[in-house]
This record gives sequence, C-alpha cells and structure tokens, in this order.
Amino acid sequence: MTSDTPFNERDTTARLTAFVADCRWEDLPETVRHEARRSLMNFFAVALAPAQDRTLDIALRTYARFSASPQATIIGRQARADAPTAAALNAMAANVYDFDDTHHPTIIHPTAPVAPVLFAMAQAGTMTGRELLLALVLGMETECRVGCAMSPGHYARGWHITSTCGVFGAAMAAGKHLGLDAGALTWALANASVQAGGLVETLGTMAKSISVGNAARNGMLSALLAADGFDGPPRALEGERGYLRVAADAPDIGPLAQDLGTRWEVLNNTYKPYPCGVVLNPVIEACLALSGEPRIVGGGAQAVRAIVLVGHPLLRQRTDRPGITTGRQSQVSAQHAVPVALLRGRAGLEAFSDSAVQDPVLRALGERVAFEDDASYSVDAVEVRVVFNDGSEVVKRIDAARGSRARPLSDQDLETKLRDLCRYGGSNVNADRLIDAIWALDTTADAGAVIALAAAPGTT
Amino acid sequence: MTSDTPFNERDTTARLTAFVADCRWEDLPETVRHEARRSLMNFFAVALAPAQDRTLDIALRTYARFSASPQATIIGRQARADAPTAAALNAMAANVYDFDDTHHPTIIHPTAPVAPVLFAMAQAGTMTGRELLLALVLGMETECRVGCAMSPGHYARGWHITSTCGVFGAAMAAGKHLGLDAGALTWALANASVQAGGLVETLGTMAKSISVGNAARNGMLSALLAADGFDGPPRALEGERGYLRVAADAPDIGPLAQDLGTRWEVLNNTYKPYPCGVVLNPVIEACLALSGEPRIVGGGAQAVRAIVLVGHPLLRQRTDRPGITTGRQSQVSAQHAVPVALLRGRAGLEAFSDSAVQDPVLRALGERVAFEDDASYSVDAVEVRVVFNDGSEVVKRIDAARGSRARPLSDQDLETKLRDLCRYGGSNVNADRLIDAIWALDTTADAGAVIALAAAPGTT
Repeated sequence: MTSDTPFNERDTTARLTAFVADCRWEDLPETVRHEARRSLMNFFAVALAPAQDRTLDIALRTYARFSASPQATIIGRQARADAPTAAALNAMAANVYDFDDTHHPTIIHPTAPVAPVLFAMAQAGTMTGRELLLALVLGMETECRVGCAMSPGHYARGWHITSTCGVFGAAMAAGKHLGLDAGALTWALANASVQAGGLVETLGTMAKSISVGNAARNGMLSALLAADGFDGPPRALEGERGYLRVAADAPDIGPLAQDLGTRWEVLNNTYKPYPCGVVLNPVIEACLALSGEPRIVGGGAQAVRAIVLVGHPLLRQRTDRPGITTGRQSQVSAQHAVPVALLRGRAGLEAFSDSAVQDPVLRALGERVAFEDDASYSVDAVEVRVVFNDGSEVVKRIDAARGSRARPLSDQDLETKLRDLCRYGGSNVNADRLIDAIWALDTTADAGAVIALAAAPGTT
Repeated sequence: MTSDTPFNERDTTARLTAFVADCRWEDLPETVRHEARRSLMNFFAVALAPAQDRTLDIALRTYARFSASPQATIIGRQARADAPTAAALNAMAANVYDFDDTHHPTIIHPTAPVAPVLFAMAQAGTMTGRELLLALVLGMETECRVGCAMSPGHYARGWHITSTCGVFGAAMAAGKHLGLDAGALTWALANASVQAGGLVETLGTMAKSISVGNAARNGMLSALLAADGFDGPPRALEGERGYLRVAADAPDIGPLAQDLGTRWEVLNNTYKPYPCGVVLNPVIEACLALSGEPRIVGGGAQAVRAIVLVGHPLLRQRTDRPGITTGRQSQVSAQHAVPVALLRGRAGLEAFSDSAVQDPVLRALGERVAFEDDASYSVDAVEVRVVFNDGSEVVKRIDAARGSRARPLSDQDLETKLRDLCRYGGSNVNADRLIDAIWALDTTADAGAVIALAAAPGTT
C-alpha cells in the first residue's frame, strides 16, 4: 500500500478479517439468522433440480476420478466425494440453472459458492448448525462486499461475479469454521485472490459451472492451506496490485470494511420465482396473469400482431434473444419466456428446457415480441401489451415483481420451490424432512446431518 | 463475435485449435524439438531444488488429503499423488524459486504449468516421449501466444502471467495427448478460460504458488472435461467477453493464430543462470567477475564508497529493494544480489536464502548500492562501477548477460544446473540418469518412466 492510498481504504483486509475472526452467533440479529436459513432453503431447492442433469453428470464423472474418501454428500445423488469435490459439485448444482439467489446490487448468486463448503466440512468433521449459519453469513458478507467494491465495472468488463467473488466468501466461511485468527484469515483471502476466475462469455454453456465449483473448492483449500501456515501478502484485496484494482477499473474500496456488524449483505439477498434472468421476472409474472386470455391461447401467433414489453433498457439489452436453440439460452430470452408463460401458463424449469425451445407454436408467437425502452421503469417493473390483429389490446403492468426486494418470496414460497424442484430433479429425496431440518438448523448439533438428508436414497 | 470484429481476429480459436489438432511430430523442426528437451532439462533442474522446501511441504500435506490414487510422481519426493495433484505440486515446485525458464517478451515461465500435466498423464496412462514433446511444444505455443496477445498490459495490470496463461497451455497439451479434435479443444480452451487466475501482488509469498499449480491441475481437468463432452463457447479467447479482452486492456489478438507452424514460441525461451529476476542477470555476472578484487573482499563496506549500477530503468524499478528480510525478497533485490556475488563469488540458491539475507557484512555492503538509469542499455546489459573511498574504481560492463537470448545457456550449462539444484534439494535423485533420459526423450516409448527417475529413492 503506497502512502497515498486513501485513508478509508487503509487496512481494509485487516478490518474485515478481524471482524470475521471475532464475530459470534450472539452478534447476529434474528433477521440475519432467518435470512441465512431462507438462503439455505433456496440453495437446497435449486441444488436438487439438476440431479439428472448432463452438466453435473459429466463433472461428477471427471471429478470423482480424483476424489479421495467419500466423506461428503453430493446433493440429489447417491455418490459421495471428498470434501472439496463435493463442495465443487454442490456449488455447480446450485447455480447450473441460474435459478439460485441474487444479491443486490451485485447480482452475485451468494449462497452457491459458500454453503457447500460448510456442509462438506461439517460432514468431514464436526459443526453445529449455529456454527454453520454464522460462517455462512460471514462468508456471504465477504463475498458480497468484495462484489460491491467492484460493481458495476467488474461484471460489465466480463467477469462472472458469482465465481470471482465466491472464492473469497468460501475462504472466509471455511476459515471461520477452522477458527483462524485475523492473520490466518488474511492469508486465506490472499490464497483465494489468486484463484478468482470466471467469465460472462461462458454463460449458457457448461464451462460456466466450472468456475462456480472452483469458487467453493478453492475457497475451502485457501483456508486449509492458511491454517497450515501457507502465507500471502497482507493486502490481497486493497493492495496496489490487489485483486480489486486488477479485476475492476474503478473499485470503490472504502465501504468494503465499513459498518461491519451493522450492515448485513445477506439482507440484500433475493430468491427467484422463475429460472430466468431476474429482469424477466416482471415480464413472466405479467404474462402468467394474461395467460387465461382466450384469444391468445386460442389464436396464438395468428391472432396476435405484437407483444410489446415496455421496460427498463436493461430488459431489452439482456433478453432480446430471438432464434435461440437451447433451454439454457431460453432462460435469458424474452422471445421464449413470453410465449411459454402466455400459452402454457407455467414458468418452471420444464418451460425452459431444450424440448420447450423446439415447440413451433411458441416460436411463432415469440416472433411477435417487441421492446419499448423506458428508463423511468425500474428493472422490477414492466408493462406487457398484447396487441391483436384487430387493433385491440390487453395490458398488464407489474410495478414490483414477485421475488424483488419489494415483494420477496415468502418462507412458504421457498418451501414450495424446494418441493417443486426436488420433484423435478427426480432424486426421491424426502423434501419435507429436509425443509424441517433447514428451519431447525440453529438448534442442530450436527449440521452435516442436514445435507445428508439431501442425498438420493440408496447407495452406490 | 460481432460483425465489426477485425478480420484478422476472426476465428482465432478455430485456427489455433485446428493447428493443435493436426500438428504431428514430423512437423516440428529439429531446433524446436531440441529446445523442448532443453526446457525439460531446466524444468527438472528447478523442480528438484525445493525437495525440502516449506511451501511445497505445506501444499503437499494439504493437497494429499484430497488425492485419489498415488499414480504420479512428485519430483524430488517419495510421496506420489493422483495425476492432477501431482501436476499441481510439480508445477509449483518448478516455479517456487522463480528460477525457471523465461519466455520473451512475455516473461512467462512456460514449462512449469505444462510439462507436469503431461508427465502425470503419462504415468496414469501411456505416452511415448515424442507424444510428450509434441504436446509440450503445442501447449507452450498456446500459452505464449495467449501471453503475447495480452502483453505488456496484462502483467502490468497485475496478473501473474505464468499462471493465467499457463492454464491455456496445460489444457491444450492435455487435449493433444487425449487426441481431442478441434471442436473439443475449443471446449478445453473455454474450460480453461474460466480458471485463469493469479496476481503479481502475491510474488514473494507462498500464495503465488497456488495459481501456478492450479494452471497445471485445471488445464488437465479442462481437457478431461472436454473429452467427455463438457462444452463451452466457441470464442473463449477472442470473443467480445472472451478472456483476452477481459484480462487485458488492449489485446493484440491478430497475431495469436498467425504463422502457426512456422513461428515457434519455444525458440523464444531462455534459462536463468541465477535464481533472480532476469534483470539482475548482467549485474550478478559483472559482480562475479569483480569478486576476486582484494579491496572488496578484504575491505567490504569499509573500503567501498559506492557500487553504481548503470542500466535500463527497469533494473532500478524492479530491484531497488533495500531492507529486505527474506530469501524470497532477496531474489529481486540488487542490495542483496550485488554484495553476495561480490563477497561470496557465488550466486546459487544458497546465496538467496533466508540466512544469507541476515548476514550483516552483506547488508553493510548492500547499503552502498546506487542506481543510474540509462535507457540506452538493454535489460540484458549493465555497467557495475565499484568506487572506493580513495576515489579509485573498478568497472565491469556486460553487454549481453549469460542466459539472455544473445548468450543462451549451453546444453552443458543446463546439465550442470540440474546437477547443482538436485544436490541443493537433497533428494538423492540420480541426476545423471535423469539427464540422459531427458536427452533421449524423443526415442523413449514410456515418457512416464522419465519422471519416475526424479522421484526420491525409497518408498513412503
């Protein structure tokens, strides 16, 4: 750190690691504890969905060749793996459909890279539910604060922010579990800083999942190495060539270590009702509301002249994707999301599958989608105008979509999401037992027993 | 890729992967084959040195907990590990002292992240010496071309270029060994692109070694995943959000896939005579030449008024480091390199150890070091002027240091380096047998047998 480093950036790493080292369960407000449980409910929901997914199948096959002892559960599967391998695979599973949680304003999916590390370590050793929740909160706090410091430039430059920031969160969560002091946590952060990677370019392909898995695996290893004395520089975050300056053009470092213990980033976490880019949330909600309209269902593309989406320019920029060919791509395509919600009245994972994309009826109606930018709309709002050939219209306006910070999913919604996605995954996991165990996590002596409930019944 | 992508950048990945898929042993000029063997001679030399080093001790302890079958040799050790773990540890070993090879102009250490992948895969399967050399050349080619496209901005921004580019080289080398076609090699590159990481900020600490090890390990996994159908985007390098644009501010992408098969980057590889930053090479050579001077040896700091280093400004910028406290730091400190070469007449690893740094006689003489920038000097040149208290001087000028492209180390020098560093490591490896095996690699049926010669005798 040079002498002209702004005062409010000095000792960012030192203050963050001291906070993490000292923070106790008693220091967490009840709202924070509950949001951590809600994050885990959503985590298990989304991680159970790809129990038969090809991306995870390949990753499991390849990684299992190099796994030591089968200590840790792979969610939705019968196979087990060593702790870092299971952490990687469970992180990949939680994020593979981009149906996991979203932190604002970073758009990090915060739970996927952190929670699997703790559950795997719980199974490899001992950990109470409170220890897990505390470490989870602190890991997410680190991850999201690192993300805030680099936003919006970091993602805009092309870094997959969940992967790049996730490894810092995973390292701090693992380090907290290991009881590292502030000095060793500093090394854990440094060890993480050289392992941050992931590119927006790979979204929609399998490659994206690698870096999400690595965030978990490598975060765990960063802390284990630090615990054994593997050192690093003191300012891997805020240093002159630290990660923040290297990976973001104009990082805002000052706030990273401010208001620790009073501002809690987990409270800025949200959960998706649909497996799509969040900017599509209000669009899908509007289309579901219009889906009973007989002229649309009966007439489809023959009856409809245009479907105009009036919304924030980001809606068009991120989702104007005609001619897509895969389920993955359909998750960020208004040309698919709009007709599938209007015609099928459903917007679950089945609606965004490879086969759904091939439906010619949906494709025909998708060609009618048009965008109208209006910067006065928030990204949680939209007006959907279906214009028929006779010039008549039906209109639905959404001011704050379900799943937004203004209208968060309820606890009940999250339970339903877990049951639905558990069924979708086909793993035969008992969803109700798992749901009960997640809500009871703060009184559980053995956190590892909770993830064991998410293993597919039977043995390999 | 957008329609306004410059023509000479189009299909960079496609052309590179087609070349790698098609290139045969017969296509390699003899100069290239020989330089590959020389690179391996230097690789084994430097990887044998840290056989009792603490950085490697810790990494081995931690990583071995999560290693499956002991299929592959860890150089200089009795322990074995699974292929990706051994690849990581051997890459770390080859680079931990920064005594490994240097590619110009990128300053990538090209062999460390690539060779260990191939040797580990050779031991886990079957591979002839020619297959290994061919895949090594193609991996280094990829790695160095990616580095060229991002130089000098990428390193200047703070990325540890050996780590970040190494993973691409490791992926292509592993993919070549696996016989991947151009399409699967494209996926391997994409899988690598999300795993590129490493920071200049961590130089001089243990954390640096993690990313070098990851480059090897993750490159191997990138290819294994691709071989099993794990896909990625088609332009992970040159795409709009591809690695080159994300990790460098003004990449020069055009040349990356030009002159394939006629320009060979391995011919731009050099080998260090001393375990120091390359800009210190001419300084050390001059000081060794002056080390017989009785007034220096006899009088030390009492007799010497100043030691003036006249050289390129980079010499001062990179090595003006007084007051250093560790052997690691001494490798880039003129204030240590100058007195140790002058007074001890030696500049091997022992001269840059933690204990050497503590020597008060060296410290006193080091305080006399002064710099004089002269941009007319190349980085391979220097004039060292020792000014005595009576005003008299002795002067030594080096125009092209040993180890530079103009004065490369000879084959004999490289053999000597291997013998010296093998002795330094204390592993009791038979250096002569290993040297013979490396020179004979192009006629060896079992490349895995070569690295087995670098295991420490005995069993664990």
